[in-house]
Amino acid sequence: MTKRLMRTGVVLFDGFELLDVAGPLECLGNLRDQFAVTLVGPVAGAVTSTQGPALVADVGWSDAPGVDLVVVPGGQGTRTLADDPAFCGWLAEWSAAASVVASVCTGAGLLASAGLLDGYRATSNKRSFAWVVGRSAQVEWVPKARWVHDRDRWTSAGVAAGIDMTLALVADLHGEELASGLAERIEYDWHRDAEWDPFAAINGLVDG
Amino acid sequence: MTKRLMRTGVVLFDGFELLDVAGPLECLGNLRDQFAVTLVGPVAGAVTSTQGPALVADVGWSDAPGVDLVVVPGGQGTRTLADDPAFCGWLAEWSAAASVVASVCTGAGLLASAGLLDGYRATSNKRSFAWVVGRSAQVEWVPKARWVHDRDRWTSAGVAAGIDMTLALVADLHGEELASGLAERIEYDWHRDAEWDPFAAINGLVDG
Repeated sequence: MTKRLMRTGVVLFDGFELLDVAGPLECLGNLRDQFAVTLVGPVAGAVTSTQGPALVADVGWSDAPGVDLVVVPGGQGTRTLADDPAFCGWLAEWSAAASVVASVCTGAGLLASAGLLDGYRATSNKRSFAWVVGRSAQVEWVPKARWVHDRDRWTSAGVAAGIDMTLALVADLHGEELASGLAERIEYDWHRDAEWDPFAAINGLVDG
Repeated sequence: MTKRLMRTGVVLFDGFELLDVAGPLECLGNLRDQFAVTLVGPVAGAVTSTQGPALVADVGWSDAPGVDLVVVPGGQGTRTLADDPAFCGWLAEWSAAASVVASVCTGAGLLASAGLLDGYRATSNKRSFAWVVGRSAQVEWVPKARWVHDRDRWTSAGVAAGIDMTLALVADLHGEELASGLAERIEYDWHRDAEWDPFAAINGLVDG
């Protein structure tokens, strides 16, 4: 179990999915002794979500500090960024020094576009699964999973699944008790089973 | 069923609970044909959550436009605001013109302090239930509930419960199909039963 303070960078971009970011941040922001979070946007300042509200980035991508944990959300903005070589190059380089790289939802499409999932098992949002899969043939995509943990990569299914994955990550790093206590504090019905995923069948990815 | 665009005001204050706000906003922000959301903070600009990240308020409280739906979150900042007559007076006056007033978590303590729950049934965060109950003896407090809907008041349990309540509110206003589709889109395991609440027993409010 890791006991040191984990420097954590959460990526923001125009058109990020609000809950993809806010779910993990609710978890990590309540564990200040374990995680020190920096929000990293295109530049420092307000970054607007797909849903409208803006979160404030602490620093711009070019000024991103070294971190131990990278978290990449999904959202409509991924569609442009996944084809942006400058962004994908930066993400690959910045993430290379991290001990854990995680994505929520279509954030997996950004990791895949940056080559960060090559040779890994991974999952993503189930409604946009085809788009994500199309980003890399070097990934073993898992259609039915709430999240996938493969070595130093964690990828979750869509939006709310990021909360389940983050709690599982907390449990993996700091023990089940801390994660359970956090889930109770935020009154969240934590799905502890990574294979629980009714949305794969709802979206026709597996037989119902 | 209401079909018109609902002007929605979400209250921000220093020390709001991030997911109390972001959960409902994820839902309402994905329904732009039904809800037009304004974030209302102490003043326009960045407002810092208990968890660290800041959301950007569109306008200050004194400039708040008239709205149909008011949403008040909880968080550590409620402890100061509940004893602030200027804030509670503003909240009471602003909310008087709304057709629906809702709270998440300890936001019920602010509604109660503003007299907005007098004569209503209501619930709140289960870990801070005693503090919230102490804000008003004129409220019929419900210790075991994921949310309570009593006429034009909706109050949810802690943090993540705000998502369940918001989906139920969407279903009440616009029908079950819209709410179900939204829950599927955000891959959220919606608790449709307002009486589902394991956290009441966990926090000793009812027998387990």
